[in-house]
Amino acid sequence: MPSNRVVVIGAGPTGLEAARLAAELGSPVTLIEKKDVPGGMPIHADYAALTHHFRDASEAMAEMIDAVTSNDLIDIRTGTEVTAVDGEAGAFTVGLAANGSSESVDAGAIILATGFQHFDPGRETQQYQYYELPDVVTIADAEKMIKSGSFVTPSTGKTPERVAFIQCVGSRDRQIGNEYCSKVCCGISSKQAIEIRQMVPDARVFIFYIDMRMYGYWENEIYWPAQEEHKVNYIKGIITEILPKGGRLVVRGEDTTMGRPMEVEMDVVILAVGMEPSEGTTAMSGILNLPTNKYGFVETAHDILDTVTTTVPGIFAAGAAVGPADLDDSIASAGAAAAKAVSLIRSAGVPV
Amino acid sequence: MPSNRVVVIGAGPTGLEAARLAAELGSPVTLIEKKDVPGGMPIHADYAALTHHFRDASEAMAEMIDAVTSNDLIDIRTGTEVTAVDGEAGAFTVGLAANGSSESVDAGAIILATGFQHFDPGRETQQYQYYELPDVVTIADAEKMIKSGSFVTPSTGKTPERVAFIQCVGSRDRQIGNEYCSKVCCGISSKQAIEIRQMVPDARVFIFYIDMRMYGYWENEIYWPAQEEHKVNYIKGIITEILPKGGRLVVRGEDTTMGRPMEVEMDVVILAVGMEPSEGTTAMSGILNLPTNKYGFVETAHDILDTVTTTVPGIFAAGAAVGPADLDDSIASAGAAAAKAVSLIRSAGVPV
Repeated sequence: MPSNRVVVIGAGPTGLEAARLAAELGSPVTLIEKKDVPGGMPIHADYAALTHHFRDASEAMAEMIDAVTSNDLIDIRTGTEVTAVDGEAGAFTVGLAANGSSESVDAGAIILATGFQHFDPGRETQQYQYYELPDVVTIADAEKMIKSGSFVTPSTGKTPERVAFIQCVGSRDRQIGNEYCSKVCCGISSKQAIEIRQMVPDARVFIFYIDMRMYGYWENEIYWPAQEEHKVNYIKGIITEILPKGGRLVVRGEDTTMGRPMEVEMDVVILAVGMEPSEGTTAMSGILNLPTNKYGFVETAHDILDTVTTTVPGIFAAGAAVGPADLDDSIASAGAAAAKAVSLIRSAGVPV
Repeated sequence: MPSNRVVVIGAGPTGLEAARLAAELGSPVTLIEKKDVPGGMPIHADYAALTHHFRDASEAMAEMIDAVTSNDLIDIRTGTEVTAVDGEAGAFTVGLAANGSSESVDAGAIILATGFQHFDPGRETQQYQYYELPDVVTIADAEKMIKSGSFVTPSTGKTPERVAFIQCVGSRDRQIGNEYCSKVCCGISSKQAIEIRQMVPDARVFIFYIDMRMYGYWENEIYWPAQEEHKVNYIKGIITEILPKGGRLVVRGEDTTMGRPMEVEMDVVILAVGMEPSEGTTAMSGILNLPTNKYGFVETAHDILDTVTTTVPGIFAAGAAVGPADLDDSIASAGAAAAKAVSLIRSAGVPV
C-alpha cells in the first residue's frame, strides 16, 4: 500500500548518508544492513584514514552512525537481509529476514547502497602470487597494517626498507574482464605511501603506475605532497612478475619512461586492487530486478544527467553499487538519491 | 524573516538540478541567472555533445530548463544579479537587481551554483601563441567548431589532415598557480577526438598528455573506443612550443615514453584548457562572505564527508563553484545541496 517510508539497503557511508537525509526530509526510513554492525567497508575492512582528507576512518564513521541512530525517524536493522520486493513505485513491500524470523515493511521508494568489494588478486593474476608470498599484500591489507600502528614486513616482522605499490590490479584489464578504471586506487595508494613514509621514515616507497589518476584536488592535496614532502617515488612502468629471492621480493617489469627492463628488490609489495560489485550488490540487483552492466554494477538511466535513477521506477542506487566511486561521489550521490526518493513519494501524493 | 524559500544562484546544469529538486521537495525556489538565458556553460559556450554520454548538449539542457520552467514553485529570474545578502540560516534576505530596478526576496537557504570559466591560454602560457596563431584553439573553441557540423582548419577553411590536443593547459601547473587537475579535460579531449575522427575520417588525431585521467567508466566508455575504434593516437609527452611553418604548425616537445625530442607538423592544435572559478563564483563568494581556497573556488567543510556545506550556515555550494567537477559530480552535488537546503529549512521549523 502507499507509503512515505524509504527503505535504504546497505549501511556503509552511502546508505548512512541517504538514510539520514531522507529522514531529515521527513520520510520515515528503514535502514537494512546484512552485517551486525553498520559502517560498511571503512569499518569492516579496518580502514585507517579516509582518502583524501586523512580523516580517521573509525571517528568519521562513528559520527555518521550516530547521526542515524539518534534520528527517531530511522529504524536501523542490522543482521537483516532483504529477501523479496513486491509492488511498485510509491507502494513497495520489502520482505526482511533476521535471526530466522521474517517480516515485511511498506516503502514508497528504495535506495540501494550495497557498494563494492575489493578485487581478489588470486583471480587470474597469478603472476603476482598474492596467495603464495606473504609479503605481497593488497591496499586493503595495507590499510589494516597502517591502522595497527606499526607497518612491518609480514614474513619477518621487521621494518621494511623498500615498499612498492603496483597500480591497476584487476582494473583496466581486458583479460580479467574489468576494462573500467576503479577510480580510487591511485588516491588510496598515494595516501598509504605517505602514511608509510611517516611511519617508517627510512623506507623507500615506490608506486608503479600506468597513469596516475589524481583528479581534481587529489593532485595538489595528495600527489604533489607525496612527491615533494614525503619523497614517494612514482615510476611509470608495467610489472609482469614478482618472485621471491633471498628473503626479499624481486619485482620485474618495464620502466616505460626509461624504455628499459626493470628488476628491483622490495620487502613489501602492495597490490592496488580495484573495485568489483559486492555480493550484496549482485544479490540485490537480482531481487530488485535491476539490470546490471557487463561488470555486474547496477545500471542507471544512462542518457540523462542522473547517476542515481535506475531503470525500475521508485528504486534508486547510489555510491559504488553503480560503479567505481570515491567517498565524495558516494556521499553526493547519496544526497541526490535521498532527494529523489522523497520527491517521488511526495509526487505520489503521500504526505511526508 | 523565516522563510521556506531556497534561492539558487546560477542556472547552469547544477543550478537547474538543485532548483528542480528543492521545489520537488516542497520549497518555493527563486533561481537567479545573470545572463538572459538559462543553461550555463553548455548553452553559452555552444557545447556540441556532453561528456561522457555524447548526448546532444542543446537537447539535454532544454529538458533541464523545461523541468524548471514548468514547475510552479520555481520563479526563474534571468538577467538578474544578486547584490547583497543579509540575515542568517533560515532567514536570509537576498537583494536582487535587474534592468535598473532592485528588490529583495526572503530565503531560508541559499545554493551557490555559479560554476567555472575556461582557463585563458593567453595568460602566462605564451609558448602556445593562442592569440597569435589562428589554428591554435581551445577545447571550448573546438566544441563550437564541432557543433557547427564542419571541422576545418580556421586559417584556410580546409579539412585538416593532422589535429593535436595538448593536455593540462592551465592545470597541474605551479608557474600559473593552478596546481590542481581540472578533472574533465582528458575526457572532453577524448570525446572531441572521437567526434573529429567521425567528421574528418582522413584526419589523424593526436593527444599529447601527462597522465590520461579517464577515471571510472570513462576508461571503457571513451578511452578504449577512442583508441581501438577511432584510432586516436595518445602520446605521453610534454609540448614546449608551437611555431608557424609553411602554413602549418610545428609542435615541439619531448616524447617521454620514447625519451626523445619530438617535432611534428599539425594543421590544428587544440589546447585542453582547465577550469578556473567563474566571475560569478568570485563575485558571489565576496557577497556571501564565503571563504575561498587559494585558487578562488569556494571552500566547503573540509574534514567531514560533505562536499556541499560551506563554512557559512545556510549556504550550500554545488558543482564547479567548489572546484573541478564533471557533469556527474555537478548533478549529484546539486541533489545533495537541494536535500541539505530543504532539510535545514525543515529543521528550523518552517513548514515546507
